Amino acid sequence: MRLVQFQAKGSTEARIGLEERDGGDVVDLNAFDPSLPRTMRAFLEAGEAALAAARRAQQSGCPPLPRSEVALLAPITSPDKVICVGMNYVDHCLEQNVKIPKEPIIFSKFSSSIVGPYDAIIHPGETDEVDWEVELAFVIGKKGKHIQESDAIAHVAGFMVAHDVSARDWQMRNGKQWLLGKTFDTFCPLGPALVTKDSVSDPHNLGIRCRVNGELVQNGSTNQMIFKTETLVAWVSQFVTLYPGDVFLTGTPPGVGFFRKPPIFLKRGDEVQCEIDELGTICNKVM
Amino acid sequence: MRLVQFQAKGSTEARIGLEERDGGDVVDLNAFDPSLPRTMRAFLEAGEAALAAARRAQQSGCPPLPRSEVALLAPITSPDKVICVGMNYVDHCLEQNVKIPKEPIIFSKFSSSIVGPYDAIIHPGETDEVDWEVELAFVIGKKGKHIQESDAIAHVAGFMVAHDVSARDWQMRNGKQWLLGKTFDTFCPLGPALVTKDSVSDPHNLGIRCRVNGELVQNGSTNQMIFKTETLVAWVSQFVTLYPGDVFLTGTPPGVGFFRKPPIFLKRGDEVQCEIDELGTICNKVM
Repeated sequence: MRLVQFQAKGSTEARIGLEERDGGDVVDLNAFDPSLPRTMRAFLEAGEAALAAARRAQQSGCPPLPRSEVALLAPITSPDKVICVGMNYVDHCLEQNVKIPKEPIIFSKFSSSIVGPYDAIIHPGETDEVDWEVELAFVIGKKGKHIQESDAIAHVAGFMVAHDVSARDWQMRNGKQWLLGKTFDTFCPLGPALVTKDSVSDPHNLGIRCRVNGELVQNGSTNQMIFKTETLVAWVSQFVTLYPGDVFLTGTPPGVGFFRKPPIFLKRGDEVQCEIDELGTICNKVM
Repeated sequence: MRLVQFQAKGSTEARIGLEERDGGDVVDLNAFDPSLPRTMRAFLEAGEAALAAARRAQQSGCPPLPRSEVALLAPITSPDKVICVGMNYVDHCLEQNVKIPKEPIIFSKFSSSIVGPYDAIIHPGETDEVDWEVELAFVIGKKGKHIQESDAIAHVAGFMVAHDVSARDWQMRNGKQWLLGKTFDTFCPLGPALVTKDSVSDPHNLGIRCRVNGELVQNGSTNQMIFKTETLVAWVSQFVTLYPGDVFLTGTPPGVGFFRKPPIFLKRGDEVQCEIDELGTICNKVM
């Protein structure tokens, strides 16, 4: 299933829906069952009961809203955590000539940086080094602490595409804490849908691509991930309780602008498409 | 005013209250005006109208709940952001022999690390280097981006005591990103109350102390802060929109365990009291 948060045309109210396919029509789950929560975080907190209702809606033949009548929001907004993993692709480590990390390198974005799959990325006046990073994201569906790798997938709701927009100057400055360079407003486009784990063949063997103004700049595979979903859930849950809605961004493949010779950065007017097989494409214009 | 989140004895429901003084009885604001929000974040989002209702309650002679009938929660829970400032006391920089930073060094905790003023700090099995850091915290009361220093105080609701519990081994490891060492569950005790700014004489001239098992280990003044409230609000709001409920931890004075010779760390059974003049004392046992 492709779960989305959306607004019907002319409304500012968020609702939960089922996207029939990437770019397809959307079944309004809140219309199908008015008792269902209206935010994805609350929907995930409701657990298996909410997912079962979504499956019933999918099988009911409930007429969808035409795609032209809906605007997709980020699949998840206001999570407790946006957990990011640095240097998690073998080939991205080679590109920057750093050793393969022995443990997942964890940093974060504030959830205020999240925007929808087709929203603008606002180029801040405070930086000249805005770079792209397509990433596989996953979302926690079940609370847990000290989760074992063998049990980790039971805590994952599904997968989506993320763009870990990064201001390289700020990332490398400020006590070398990456946070500020990663968390400007609009620096975390997510979407287009939260694809439930049962609808993804193998999350660690998917083509992952980024295009800037149509030009292919990243073209990798999630099979290059050093620490995979199960390991990341287990690792991070040593430190913190994971809650439904928590988002993980799992690192980027090679091809970012910063390591090109000379470096290339995003400018206003550029359009960035981030795409992962089976999950879909998000497209964000830099403004 | 001393705004608190509390639970009445025998209830698990959070409510908003007015603490008459540090450790005093508590007026139930939700009983006084049932239309008031029941979380501090929503209360602050309601802005001046909610504060005016609290002032009316204070002046109404509404009988308070005896202190023995209430348990205080953290004054704010589930904020969008917990923004922390590193190396922000002149004398703490001298203690570790580092230069005075030229700009605020920003890192973060996940809001899942927040606990109440008298809750336990869980000593994780994953570290042997749990250290104390008493800090002045402030809370955003009004949304803003690119806030000018001259307008910054208008965006601040008030002040409270924070304990920035820190696992030094993890802080210095993991790609030198401080996040993991700072964000274990229970590593952010807050309280006892959110003291509204009109009730604090000068937030930048307050005695600030930490005691471990009764022994004074930090004894400073917020007049040693390098970047003060106004500067921090302006600086951080260059990067991110600040929302009501966002918490800033403004750095610690000297006297932490890590820089002692030999270093001293917290162990299970220790009791840590963090105290700031005019704001009160939080007391957390390590378990």
